[in-house]
Amino acid sequence: MGANKNSIKIIGSGTDNYVQGYFVYDSKKSGSVTTSHLRFGPKPLLSTYLITEANFIACHNFSFLERMDILAAAAPGAVFLLNSPYGADEVWQHLPRKTQETILARKLQFYVIDGYSVAHDAGMGNRINTIMQTCFFAISGVLPRDEAIIQIKQAIKKTYGKRGDVVLQNYAAVDAALAHLHRVTVPEHVSATFDLLPMFPREAPSFVTNVLGEMAAGRGDLLPVSALPPGGTFPTGTAHWEKRNIAHEIPVWDTDLCIQCGKCVLVCPHAVIRAKVFDSTLLAAAPQTFKTAKPKWRDMENERYTLQVAPEDCTGCHLCVEICPAVSKTEPKRKALHMAPQAPLREAEVKNWTFFEALPSVDRNRLSHNQVKDIQLLDPLFEFSGACAGCGETPYIKLLTQLFGDRLFIANATGCSSIYGGSLPTTPYTVNKSGRGPTWSNSLFEDNAEFGLGIRLALDQQKEYAEVLLQAFASTLGGELVTAILTADQSTEVGIEAQRRRILLVRAKLARVDSPEARTLLTVADSLARKSVWLVGGDGWAYDIGFGGLDHVLGSGENVKVLVLDTETYSNTGGQMSKSTPRGAVAKFAAGGKLTAKKDLAMEAVSYGSVYVARVAMGGSDAQTIKAFQEAEAYDGPALIIAYSHCIAHGYDLAQGMEQQKKAVLSGYWPLMRYNPSLRAQGKNPFQLDSRPPSIPLKDYSYNEARYTMLARSHPDVAAKLLEEAQDDVDREWRVYSARAAVAGHSDPEAVLAAEPQKAPISSAATSAE
Amino acid sequence: MGANKNSIKIIGSGTDNYVQGYFVYDSKKSGSVTTSHLRFGPKPLLSTYLITEANFIACHNFSFLERMDILAAAAPGAVFLLNSPYGADEVWQHLPRKTQETILARKLQFYVIDGYSVAHDAGMGNRINTIMQTCFFAISGVLPRDEAIIQIKQAIKKTYGKRGDVVLQNYAAVDAALAHLHRVTVPEHVSATFDLLPMFPREAPSFVTNVLGEMAAGRGDLLPVSALPPGGTFPTGTAHWEKRNIAHEIPVWDTDLCIQCGKCVLVCPHAVIRAKVFDSTLLAAAPQTFKTAKPKWRDMENERYTLQVAPEDCTGCHLCVEICPAVSKTEPKRKALHMAPQAPLREAEVKNWTFFEALPSVDRNRLSHNQVKDIQLLDPLFEFSGACAGCGETPYIKLLTQLFGDRLFIANATGCSSIYGGSLPTTPYTVNKSGRGPTWSNSLFEDNAEFGLGIRLALDQQKEYAEVLLQAFASTLGGELVTAILTADQSTEVGIEAQRRRILLVRAKLARVDSPEARTLLTVADSLARKSVWLVGGDGWAYDIGFGGLDHVLGSGENVKVLVLDTETYSNTGGQMSKSTPRGAVAKFAAGGKLTAKKDLAMEAVSYGSVYVARVAMGGSDAQTIKAFQEAEAYDGPALIIAYSHCIAHGYDLAQGMEQQKKAVLSGYWPLMRYNPSLRAQGKNPFQLDSRPPSIPLKDYSYNEARYTMLARSHPDVAAKLLEEAQDDVDREWRVYSARAAVAGHSDPEAVLAAEPQKAPISSAATSAE
Repeated sequence: MGANKNSIKIIGSGTDNYVQGYFVYDSKKSGSVTTSHLRFGPKPLLSTYLITEANFIACHNFSFLERMDILAAAAPGAVFLLNSPYGADEVWQHLPRKTQETILARKLQFYVIDGYSVAHDAGMGNRINTIMQTCFFAISGVLPRDEAIIQIKQAIKKTYGKRGDVVLQNYAAVDAALAHLHRVTVPEHVSATFDLLPMFPREAPSFVTNVLGEMAAGRGDLLPVSALPPGGTFPTGTAHWEKRNIAHEIPVWDTDLCIQCGKCVLVCPHAVIRAKVFDSTLLAAAPQTFKTAKPKWRDMENERYTLQVAPEDCTGCHLCVEICPAVSKTEPKRKALHMAPQAPLREAEVKNWTFFEALPSVDRNRLSHNQVKDIQLLDPLFEFSGACAGCGETPYIKLLTQLFGDRLFIANATGCSSIYGGSLPTTPYTVNKSGRGPTWSNSLFEDNAEFGLGIRLALDQQKEYAEVLLQAFASTLGGELVTAILTADQSTEVGIEAQRRRILLVRAKLARVDSPEARTLLTVADSLARKSVWLVGGDGWAYDIGFGGLDHVLGSGENVKVLVLDTETYSNTGGQMSKSTPRGAVAKFAAGGKLTAKKDLAMEAVSYGSVYVARVAMGGSDAQTIKAFQEAEAYDGPALIIAYSHCIAHGYDLAQGMEQQKKAVLSGYWPLMRYNPSLRAQGKNPFQLDSRPPSIPLKDYSYNEARYTMLARSHPDVAAKLLEEAQDDVDREWRVYSARAAVAGHSDPEAVLAAEPQKAPISSAATSAE
Repeated sequence: MGANKNSIKIIGSGTDNYVQGYFVYDSKKSGSVTTSHLRFGPKPLLSTYLITEANFIACHNFSFLERMDILAAAAPGAVFLLNSPYGADEVWQHLPRKTQETILARKLQFYVIDGYSVAHDAGMGNRINTIMQTCFFAISGVLPRDEAIIQIKQAIKKTYGKRGDVVLQNYAAVDAALAHLHRVTVPEHVSATFDLLPMFPREAPSFVTNVLGEMAAGRGDLLPVSALPPGGTFPTGTAHWEKRNIAHEIPVWDTDLCIQCGKCVLVCPHAVIRAKVFDSTLLAAAPQTFKTAKPKWRDMENERYTLQVAPEDCTGCHLCVEICPAVSKTEPKRKALHMAPQAPLREAEVKNWTFFEALPSVDRNRLSHNQVKDIQLLDPLFEFSGACAGCGETPYIKLLTQLFGDRLFIANATGCSSIYGGSLPTTPYTVNKSGRGPTWSNSLFEDNAEFGLGIRLALDQQKEYAEVLLQAFASTLGGELVTAILTADQSTEVGIEAQRRRILLVRAKLARVDSPEARTLLTVADSLARKSVWLVGGDGWAYDIGFGGLDHVLGSGENVKVLVLDTETYSNTGGQMSKSTPRGAVAKFAAGGKLTAKKDLAMEAVSYGSVYVARVAMGGSDAQTIKAFQEAEAYDGPALIIAYSHCIAHGYDLAQGMEQQKKAVLSGYWPLMRYNPSLRAQGKNPFQLDSRPPSIPLKDYSYNEARYTMLARSHPDVAAKLLEEAQDDVDREWRVYSARAAVAGHSDPEAVLAAEPQKAPISSAATSAE
C-alpha cells in the first residue's frame, strides 16, 4: 500500500494527470488483503469511487489466486502483473480455471516477476514493494521508463535517506526488477485442472459458508438482512474455517530433541502449535507422517505425546523456535523446532492436523494448572486470530482461555484486541469439546470497564434471582439438591463441574413443571455456576481514554478482572503516544521522544489496598505470569494484570519478542510484582517482588528497538538525555517497589522501621526463562 | 422547606383535597431564600405553576422584609404569618411602608409568633420549622386543629423516632407554638418612616443595581438580552454589594487579649473578619467605636493594628471564636473573640467596616508569605460567598487568592465551589487595589481538568507569540527592554511586578505604532507576566467523574495546579457517595455505610514521580497548608493539593470543623504529607510526612460525626465491623506513608534496606494547631 501511495504521488507530481488513490483493506493484522484503487487521467476527478474496470491489475501475493477472483474487474486488453514463484513458461499451469478463462476472454497482457527472489537477492528479505512498483512503471508507460526510475529512486532516498545501506539495497532491487520482469506468452486454450476454492471449506456449517464466507469474499454488502443473526450475536469458533496459508515457513518438530516443556505452545500467538497426550491405541488411524513421542510425565506410560502445527493457520513468526530451550548437544544450532518451507509440507501436515484435532483432550483434572508443562495440554479457546505474526498480546489471551475459558466473559475495549478478537467475518474465540467457551463482546475505549462491570452485576443479579426461585421450588427439586446448589464450593474446577451437573438436574426436573416461575428459573439457572468476568484492552484504553472508568471499577470492590495488554502505544491506530509510552520512546504526538515517564498503573491500583495487582511479562517469567492469572481469578474482588506485550510498533523483528521481554525484566524496566490483598489477612506482606534487582543497564534492553534508536540516530543529544532520565525512572521505581516489598506487610510501622533490614526479595516463582 | 413538604403531605393524605407543592430556591448555601408554593383544593390540579394569588403567606425570616416585597402575591383577605422578634403590639412600626400599605389595602389577617424564642425555650436552637408548621395549621383551618396537631406529631415521630429527646422537644415546641401565636390588630393607617430597601445599595455601579439587582430580586427573566454582557463574561467583586445580614450573632474583638496570630482571619470562610496594619495618622478620620491595637510586629512602631468584622456579611459560624488561641488568664472562658447579637452592633460596625475597607493595604513586600501571622494582612480576593456558614472549603480558596490572586486563573469544576464561586447574580471573586484579581470560569464535572489545561496551553501560546512579536519590534522598543522581558526572573512577586512595569512600557511605546503587528502584540502583551493556573473542584470531580481527565493532566507534565476541596461526598447535590467517601460513612448510595476504603488520590499522583502532591488540613496544621500552597505554585510542573474540607454533610456543628480537622490528623486518618519532585535533584527524599504517628484512635475522630454515628445507632454490629476495618485502613496507609518517607529518597535500594533504620519522621512544619 505504501508503494502504491507513492506511485500515485509520482504520477500526480510528475505528469499532467489528475490522480486519485483509494485503499480498501480488511481487518487482519498480518497477511491481510489490501486493494489499492489508483485512478489517473487528463480530466479532473470529481468524485471518489472504487474501480470496477481496471486497465492494470497487479497481484502481489500468489496465494490470493487460490480463492479470490483477482481479475473480476479487468477491462478488455488490460495488463495483469503477478508476483509469482513460477516463471513465465510454467505459471499458466498453476492458475485456476476461472483466472485462465478471464485472461483469454479479455485478451489480457500477462506479466510475471518472482518478486521474493529478487528481494531476497538484493538483501531485502520479503520486502517486495519497491520491486512491484518498478514493474508497474516499466509496463504501464505512464512516465518514460527512465524518468520513472529516477523518481522511484528519489522517493527511496527521501524515505531511507539516513540509512545508506538500505538505500543501496533498494536501488539494486529496482534495477534487478527490470531484469526479472517477463511477459507471459498466453496459450490459446484453458488447460486448468482445478478452479477457485471457496473462501471457507465446503464442510463448514452453512452459516459459515453462506454468510461469513460471502463477507470474507468482499460480498457482505450483498447479503440480505435476514441472513444476519438477530441481535447481532455471532457464533464463535469461526476463525477455525479460515485457512489463510500466509506462512512461507512453518515449524517442524524433532521428537528426539524435544523435552516437552510446553513453552512453544505457550508463546504461540495464534495457537497453531499444540500438544496432546492420548492413548497409544488411537495411533492406529494416524496418517503416515504423524509424529509422536513418549510422554515425559509420570503415570502416562501407555500414552503418546504429540506436538502438532496447524500448517494453514501458522503465520511463520518464529516465536516457538526462538523460545525452544531444547538444543542438540552435538549440533548447537539445532533445536527441537526449526522452520521449513510450508508448501512442500502442507498436504501431509493438513492431514496430521485434522487427525490431531479429532484426538480427545486430556482430562483437565489430571493436570496441574500452575505450570507451563501441563498447561500446554489444556485446550486453547482462542485460535487463529488475525493478530500480527509474532503478536505479544495474544499469548496472554490464549492462556486466559486455557485456564478459565469455559466460564469466561470478556468485555473487550477498542483496540487491536477488539479487531483480532472479533471483527467480522470470523471470531477466534471458540468452544471446548463440551461446547463451552468464552462469551465475548466489544465496547468503546471510554466505557469498557463500566461495560464489563455491568456484565458482572447482571450475572450476580441473575444468580440472586435464581437462588430465590430455587428456594421456592424446594419441594419439587428436593431440599438436598437446593441446599447443595446454594452452598456449593466452586473454588475448583471439580466444584464448578459438580455444580453444572446439579444445574442439569434442576433443568431436567423443571422441564416437567409448567409454570411461569419454572420457565423463568430455567432462563437464569446457568448463572448458578461460577463465572469469570474479564475486562480486556490495551494501554490506550487502560491508561488513557478508559482510565476514569477503570479506576471506578477497581474502586468498586466488585469481582471483575482486568487484563491490560500493554504495548505502550496505541497500536491499532498506528502508534500514537499513550500515558503508558515510556520516556524517550518515539511515537506519534511524541515525534521527538516522549518527555515524561510511563504512568505506573500498577502502583495506582496498589494504592487502593483492596485490588489484586500484578505486572507480568511472559518472556520474563512464564511461571510468574501463570501464578498471577490464577491468583487474580481466585481473588474475591477486583484484580488487575498488566501484561508486557511486545508489538510491531516497537520496531524490531518480533521473533525476538520474548527475548526482549526478558531483557525488560533484567534491566528493571519491567519489575515483575504481585500485590495480593488476601495475604494481609495472613499477616503477610501483600506486595511481592518477583524479579531480581536490575542486572543490565536500561540501554541494553531499550536500544534493541527502533522506537528508541530512531531518536538516537536523529537527535543523539536528546536521546542520550532521555535515556539517562529513563534510567533514573527505572532506578526510582525499583526503590519504591523494593521498599514496598520489604516493609509494607508488617503491622507496626515503628517495628518495621526498627526491624532487622531485609534483603531484597528474590523471586519465589521458578523463572525458568531467566 | 422540609416542613412545607411535610404539610402538603399531611393535607394530601388527611383530607379529600388534591395537592401540589413547588419549591423555588436560590443558589446560596446558607441564609438562602426558599419559597414554597403549596396549592390544594377539591378539584384536580392539572398543571404545575407558581402561585400568583396566595390565600396564605408566611415569612419565616424577619430580615427578608427589609428588601423583599413579601406580600406582592397576597390575595385580598389573605392570612399573613410572620416570624417576628417583635410582639403583636409593636411589630407594626417595624414594617416598611410598602408592606403596611399592602396589609391595609388588601385587608390581610396578620399573625405573629416569635419562633426563635419558642424554639430556643424548647431546646431546639434555631430550628423553627415545626413551630411555623403548627401555626399554619392552627390558622388555616385546613384540618381541625386537634387533628392537625396529631398529624404533625406523627410526622415528628416518624422523622426522629429513634431519638426520644428530640421527639419530646418537638412535641413541646408544637404545644408552645399555639400559646405564642398572636393575631395583630392592624392599625387603620400607614405609619412607616422607611420603605423597602433596594436589593443592592444605590451607590453600587449601575450594572450591579440595574442588572444583577434585578436578578437578585427574582426579576431576571424580565431583563432584555441587551442588558447582559456580551460573551457571558461578568464583572467580579459583586458579592461585595450583597449585604445579606443573615447572622444573629457576630464576633466581637478584645484588643487586649488578642495576640494578633491571624488564625481567625485564616479560617473565616467568608472573609468577613480581616486585619490591617496602617499608619496611625489615618486614625484621625476613624469612627468613634473603631478599635485598634499596637501591632505585634517589628518595624511597625508607628502603625496600628485592627481586626474588623463585616457585620452585614458575617454568617455567624463561630469558626473564628473557636480557633482563637488567646484565652484570658483570669477568665478561662474569655477569648480575644466572642459572639454577640448583631442587631445592636450593626449600625456602628457598618461604619467601622466602611472605614476599614478604605484603609490602604500593607505593602506585600513587607510581609512573609509563609506564615499565618503575616498572611492575615494580605488582601483576600474571594469574599462574601454564598457558601454555608462554617464552610470548610472556602478558607482554602481565600488563601489561594491571598497568595496568588493577582495572577490567578481558576478552572472550576461543577460542585459547591462552582455554585458559591460564581452562580448569578453575584461573584465573590474580586480585585485588589491595583484592579487585578482572579480570572474564573466553570466547566463540567467531566472535563474541568482538560478545560484548565486548555487555559494553560492558551496562555503559553500567547506568551510564545508575544515573545516572537517582541523580538520583531526590538528596534522600536529598544533591545535592552526586549531582553529584560525575555530573560525576566519572575520567581518572586518583586520580579513579576517588575515585568508588569516593563509590559506597561511596551504598551506605551507601541501605542504610537500604527501597524497590525503592534496591535496584535498589545492584545497578547499581558501574557508575558507570569500566570498561575489552578484547577479547582471537589472530590466528586477529582476522585470520580473528572478523574480520567485529571489523571491525564497530571501525566502531561504541564504547569497546572490542582486544588481538591475534599469533603468526601458530593456535597452540592446532597451527599452522594464518591470514591473519596471513607469506609463506614453513610452517604446516599451507601445507606448502610460505605463498604470500601477511601481512594488514595495522593498516592496515585505520587506514583507519577513527577507531580507535586500534598495532603493538607488547615485545622491540622495551617503552617503545612501554607507551605504546600507555596511549593505547589513554585513547582515547574503539575501539582495536586488535596485539602481536607469539613462539610455540613458530615453531620455536626461546623463550629467544631477545625477541631475535627485536627483530630483527623491526630488519628492518622488524614496524614499530612508533601511530595516534591524537586527535592530529588538535591538528593533528598521527595516524600515528606508532616504529621506524627497516630496518637488517638480513629473512633475519637470519626464518631464525632453523624455520618458515622447514624450507622452505629441503626446497625451497631455493621458499624463496629466497618470501624475496625477503617482503623485497619488507617494503619495500613500509615505504614505505606512512613515507609515512603523513610526510604524513597535514597539512591541505592540495597543500601536503603541495609541502612540504619530511621525513626518515624516528625513534622518539620511548625504545627501550631497541635
